[in-house]
Amino acid sequence: MSSSETSSSEVSADVTGRSTLSAAPLGAATEAQPGVRAFKVGLLGYGTVGSAFAALLEERAAHVERITGRLPVVGEALTTSKGSFPEILEGSDAIVELIGGIEPARDYVLAALSAGKHVITANKQLLSQHGEALFEAARASGAQLRFEAAIAGVVPVVRVLCESLAGAHVERVHGIVNGTTNFILSEMTRGSTYAQALAEAQSQGFAEADPSEDVSGRDAAAKMAILARLAFDTPVHIDEVPYEGIEHLKTDDIQYARELGLGLKLIGTAERRDGGLSVSVHPAFLYSGHPLASVNGPFNAVTVESEAITEITMSGPGAGGLQTASAVLGDLVSTMLPPGAPAPPADPLPLVSDVESGFYIHMEMADRPGALAAVAGALGEQGASIKSVVQHGLGEHARLVMIVHPLAETRLREALKRIGDLDFLRSTPRAIRVIEEEYL
Amino acid sequence: MSSSETSSSEVSADVTGRSTLSAAPLGAATEAQPGVRAFKVGLLGYGTVGSAFAALLEERAAHVERITGRLPVVGEALTTSKGSFPEILEGSDAIVELIGGIEPARDYVLAALSAGKHVITANKQLLSQHGEALFEAARASGAQLRFEAAIAGVVPVVRVLCESLAGAHVERVHGIVNGTTNFILSEMTRGSTYAQALAEAQSQGFAEADPSEDVSGRDAAAKMAILARLAFDTPVHIDEVPYEGIEHLKTDDIQYARELGLGLKLIGTAERRDGGLSVSVHPAFLYSGHPLASVNGPFNAVTVESEAITEITMSGPGAGGLQTASAVLGDLVSTMLPPGAPAPPADPLPLVSDVESGFYIHMEMADRPGALAAVAGALGEQGASIKSVVQHGLGEHARLVMIVHPLAETRLREALKRIGDLDFLRSTPRAIRVIEEEYL
Repeated sequence: MSSSETSSSEVSADVTGRSTLSAAPLGAATEAQPGVRAFKVGLLGYGTVGSAFAALLEERAAHVERITGRLPVVGEALTTSKGSFPEILEGSDAIVELIGGIEPARDYVLAALSAGKHVITANKQLLSQHGEALFEAARASGAQLRFEAAIAGVVPVVRVLCESLAGAHVERVHGIVNGTTNFILSEMTRGSTYAQALAEAQSQGFAEADPSEDVSGRDAAAKMAILARLAFDTPVHIDEVPYEGIEHLKTDDIQYARELGLGLKLIGTAERRDGGLSVSVHPAFLYSGHPLASVNGPFNAVTVESEAITEITMSGPGAGGLQTASAVLGDLVSTMLPPGAPAPPADPLPLVSDVESGFYIHMEMADRPGALAAVAGALGEQGASIKSVVQHGLGEHARLVMIVHPLAETRLREALKRIGDLDFLRSTPRAIRVIEEEYL
Repeated sequence: MSSSETSSSEVSADVTGRSTLSAAPLGAATEAQPGVRAFKVGLLGYGTVGSAFAALLEERAAHVERITGRLPVVGEALTTSKGSFPEILEGSDAIVELIGGIEPARDYVLAALSAGKHVITANKQLLSQHGEALFEAARASGAQLRFEAAIAGVVPVVRVLCESLAGAHVERVHGIVNGTTNFILSEMTRGSTYAQALAEAQSQGFAEADPSEDVSGRDAAAKMAILARLAFDTPVHIDEVPYEGIEHLKTDDIQYARELGLGLKLIGTAERRDGGLSVSVHPAFLYSGHPLASVNGPFNAVTVESEAITEITMSGPGAGGLQTASAVLGDLVSTMLPPGAPAPPADPLPLVSDVESGFYIHMEMADRPGALAAVAGALGEQGASIKSVVQHGLGEHARLVMIVHPLAETRLREALKRIGDLDFLRSTPRAIRVIEEEYL
């Protein structure tokens, strides 16, 4: 999903900046206390992601101040209609680039990095076409360039490749890095045609009015070019990544393959092959046991393989506005956070126990008339609601297996004590927690 | 799995250190070039994980030097029989603590942090009992304390909670954080008794001779105490975490619940509940659609939920020696790596294309005698081996669906061209990649 690009056309002001920046900062700024150093965030672009980011930062500003010692403050965002990039740059500790596209984003990001300002961006086109120049500018000035939101939204694949696995010998990175196409393929698996599935994706906000960047596979190719660079220390331009989209796929093929135990995904792969590096994006059938086969709907999932780690799989929602904004916030906080140890707890929560849970209950009993009523009565007295009951066996050696809806453990224990006292019970009843799907 | 603890009894030297440290450094040290600044790693403990870490670091030393500018060098490890902690501390840029247990590990880690030396540890007991004191020592000196390997091995849950999600409002962290018990429960689901499953886990190296720390749930409880602290800024001591193990579980219960669509896992949970924080470890049944339900064998998986991110799930092998060593290496490299941009590519790989893949092939054709032979012949000429064939329909409007084993795309295209020329074909054949399970 490329909703991080929905603000692409929001900014056209040039680097010299002719319009003026409003002096009134937004949101969190107004809460700055005397003595607290503000951390000024220059926001470029105010589309879907830009506005979601500004709102999320305001909501989390006090928490961020607590863990970093500085209150993040967003000034007025640069848009096509207002704001001056040079003024924003001058007044910021870090720049968040959510304009999308190549220009003017490239000029702005390079100018910011060269000025030693940290940059957080969600711009996969820019990184997949000009990544090396940006990385070089960051290294030269010592500024940080962070871009988790450019790949798989909240799925922290950039951080894991650049940090957790910086020392590792990676064999393969592959996965589902476009939520739009994964949603469409999930719909087609359920019988929709491509056109129906696309229309559904658009109506649910998972595909843009012009979906070509996503459905052609080009969005995924840009992401795989960036991941290949990070995993294999090899610069890869998007034009070097062969990609194939999903527009030509037939529901028939998905159905036939399903009979063979196969499910269809748009898979991006970067792997060591034949002494070199192979990077590509293609629709591919996976057997049902494959870890990526069960990733359905607008989700992303990436698996990293290396001999020493075996494999790590990370999954989560593909980039929606709020999810992309969360990834940007994570990167921003990382530029503010001294590495080391967790901040001291400022507002710890009280520990609570005896929380509610569903339960499985197993009873060995003689199957007498009224037995179930007695058991159900003991449960009902404690407020337990029975979800399902299965009896195994008959007569003197029956077993009753029940699932009850969530109730507090103390109440369940009380009910079990009452049940254990019933004269037809043949052993102490056993209980095991059940996590209900509704909790998800 | 608590294999990171297998070296628990390796060191008993006291803080004053009476034995002497060999002057001859191991491995990577001998490769240091003039002009290259070594990064000296003081290794405490040389059990399963310690020795795996030393070997892995030697293997990856040149790569780490390339990305960090400093060559990591491990001196002789501190063990019960040799080494002086004060001398190791004095001569090290960072300390890797793989002794396990509380003392002398606690004294060593506190001494190192107080001296401003970064510490990487896999010691979940220490963190779940004395975490705040260690965090405070790290903050006071500005040294880093990293401990990814203490939780879920290579699954980067500590890094994601402390960095990617540092600004987030987390609602729940839950998952499978003990590989030993997950392996045993997987075996019991296949019909083994608890005793049989435990014996199998021990024979495969997934359980220790004394498995009580794992099977009692205490190992998972220590990990959940630490995760709760990171996710909810609330200090939690292991003694405050109610936990229940798997020793008392009956194969019968697993089988009965299976009929109800439920699978059994040992689940650790830390979540906001009733205005406070609930942290616990219990066996729990999950419905088959639950993301944790499909995590089988000695694997770990953790899901983090928050409104803004929806949820992120991370999975990978529970800590074996090499996996734990990899997590330690990732943390070590993070202490050496300036944050910012990827290192310049030093040894980029050549890009290769036309790599092999399995393929699904769909052909609309008139079903004539010899048709399959002609198709198979065209594929055979290109070296394609047929894995399965299904025919749909009969006569003039049949469809043939095939899966072929991996071959180069150019050869597949050549075969499809030949097949397309056959006179009984009714449309151009279609091909879609198939990722074979053998690749995993």
